[in-house]
Amino acid sequence: MPEARAPLARNISIVGVGHIGGSLAYDLLATRACTTLTLHDSSRRARNNLAALFPGCCVAGSLEDAVRTADLLILATPLSAYPKLLAAIAPVLARRTVVSDVGSVKSIVCQQFSELLPPRAVCVPAHPVAGTEHSGAENARANLFRNRYTILTPSERSSSSGVRLVKALWRRVGARVMLLPAAQHDSILALTSHLPHAIAYALVLAALESPHRESDLAKLSAGGFRDFTRIAASSARMWHDVFFANPQELKRSLKHFRAALDKIERAVAKGRSEELIAFFERARASRRSILAEGQAGVFLPDEPAPSNSPEQG
Amino acid sequence: MPEARAPLARNISIVGVGHIGGSLAYDLLATRACTTLTLHDSSRRARNNLAALFPGCCVAGSLEDAVRTADLLILATPLSAYPKLLAAIAPVLARRTVVSDVGSVKSIVCQQFSELLPPRAVCVPAHPVAGTEHSGAENARANLFRNRYTILTPSERSSSSGVRLVKALWRRVGARVMLLPAAQHDSILALTSHLPHAIAYALVLAALESPHRESDLAKLSAGGFRDFTRIAASSARMWHDVFFANPQELKRSLKHFRAALDKIERAVAKGRSEELIAFFERARASRRSILAEGQAGVFLPDEPAPSNSPEQG
Repeated sequence: MPEARAPLARNISIVGVGHIGGSLAYDLLATRACTTLTLHDSSRRARNNLAALFPGCCVAGSLEDAVRTADLLILATPLSAYPKLLAAIAPVLARRTVVSDVGSVKSIVCQQFSELLPPRAVCVPAHPVAGTEHSGAENARANLFRNRYTILTPSERSSSSGVRLVKALWRRVGARVMLLPAAQHDSILALTSHLPHAIAYALVLAALESPHRESDLAKLSAGGFRDFTRIAASSARMWHDVFFANPQELKRSLKHFRAALDKIERAVAKGRSEELIAFFERARASRRSILAEGQAGVFLPDEPAPSNSPEQG
Repeated sequence: MPEARAPLARNISIVGVGHIGGSLAYDLLATRACTTLTLHDSSRRARNNLAALFPGCCVAGSLEDAVRTADLLILATPLSAYPKLLAAIAPVLARRTVVSDVGSVKSIVCQQFSELLPPRAVCVPAHPVAGTEHSGAENARANLFRNRYTILTPSERSSSSGVRLVKALWRRVGARVMLLPAAQHDSILALTSHLPHAIAYALVLAALESPHRESDLAKLSAGGFRDFTRIAASSARMWHDVFFANPQELKRSLKHFRAALDKIERAVAKGRSEELIAFFERARASRRSILAEGQAGVFLPDEPAPSNSPEQG
């Protein structure tokens, strides 16, 4: 019964209300995670819809209003907006405010927090690994983070009470929480998220440049292609920002991927049957790890409900 | 009311009862598509389970029995089994029997049908584009082909009545039917199915060769990786056979894919923001074609029921 729990904080503010910020807002409201949830978006048009989309929230007309009142401030804008945003936040940030975010790359965020926020600011960078191909507040939905992992990458700017608060927040909305060094986060996510997106975009582009009609490609997409188009349907702006924020790790992962693809292509060209089957069997086995970790699908009926207690580290 | 329809043929035989052959068997039994459905598998262990798995079918103890009785014979074995199988079928094939299959590559199948079956044999090669990552008769399921496309690639060995029969069969189980030249089928499927599988295998292999723990990769797989592991969980033997049966088109599609990937990597390396966003927007738009064709997911609730009438071309 989440309703019976005490609030985690008096005032939580979310700046940037898209798919992730909006989905988090739904869950924070539903679980009464704070006394007041304040939302702010830089777009006036987006702001005008917030009160109707998220009944019970408080809409801040200016960034300063959202920041000044916050005990916990969560940035949920595209990564490329951070530098300007942090520079605007810095002069109005209260000493008590814990700053967190939901960005998909963490080394650069830790660095920007250190450089652009005052030394007294408590920062706890975070990344909920839970997106879908949808974007925008109008596509936000409840329980998006349930049973998914949220990674915290604490730095020398983090306090233990700040980490406790952000951890409690994500557990409150059903996420599992992991702590990782930012560099390790970026290296793993390059493989499990950034590289898959690069590949999906490339595959779809290659197909579109073929002489075949797009409608024929679409009709015959059930053999694998449609899954790639789903991944490639994600926000162009967001993925542009991710690639530009993690270019070294993306490059490294692309190098390993190309080497693996070469191996497969060579085995086919040289007629090496057993080698090819061994590659495939090895890749196949890794599906079992995903299933064991309960990360196979967003709505797998056999996934256990999250068993984390909400308030402790 | 499928039960009220007349049977399409007296005797249909399926040789090779795995995921596809078994799923087709379920649907043929449920829609009473034939008076007698005969199943045969070369593995004695598999054969022993067939009567229990498919109540109402007739299990043939020998390949010859399955072939001799058939008005329509459907091969559903891995592609690499075809040459031996066709050689064994040829001497016992009745003049009335229409031979079809479900193989994922069609040029080589047309060629083998021509070379290995007697000139009087009527052959209608087919490919239901509807697999999942599961394999084996025990994972067969009803309605697998519903609303998916089945491609027929008629050759000089096909008769119009043979094509009509095979078309009616796939419509009976809810599939949409398309006719394509075998070469065009293989070229499109290289892009929409064979290449995606090669890529998925390569991505998973690249991740497994990284220094990261497999359990961490699994935990953080919700950002895209898990979709690739699902594709890479498909039958190793089947995909080995597909790659070896369509090496030229696979090579060609890999070339186009690598070029697209180079473009993306170069745009990131050179900081060309607008170019990258344009690539992504273009790829994203193709998702709309997939949605328009109703091929977005196996169980999309908003997919219309197939509206094809069963008996006509």
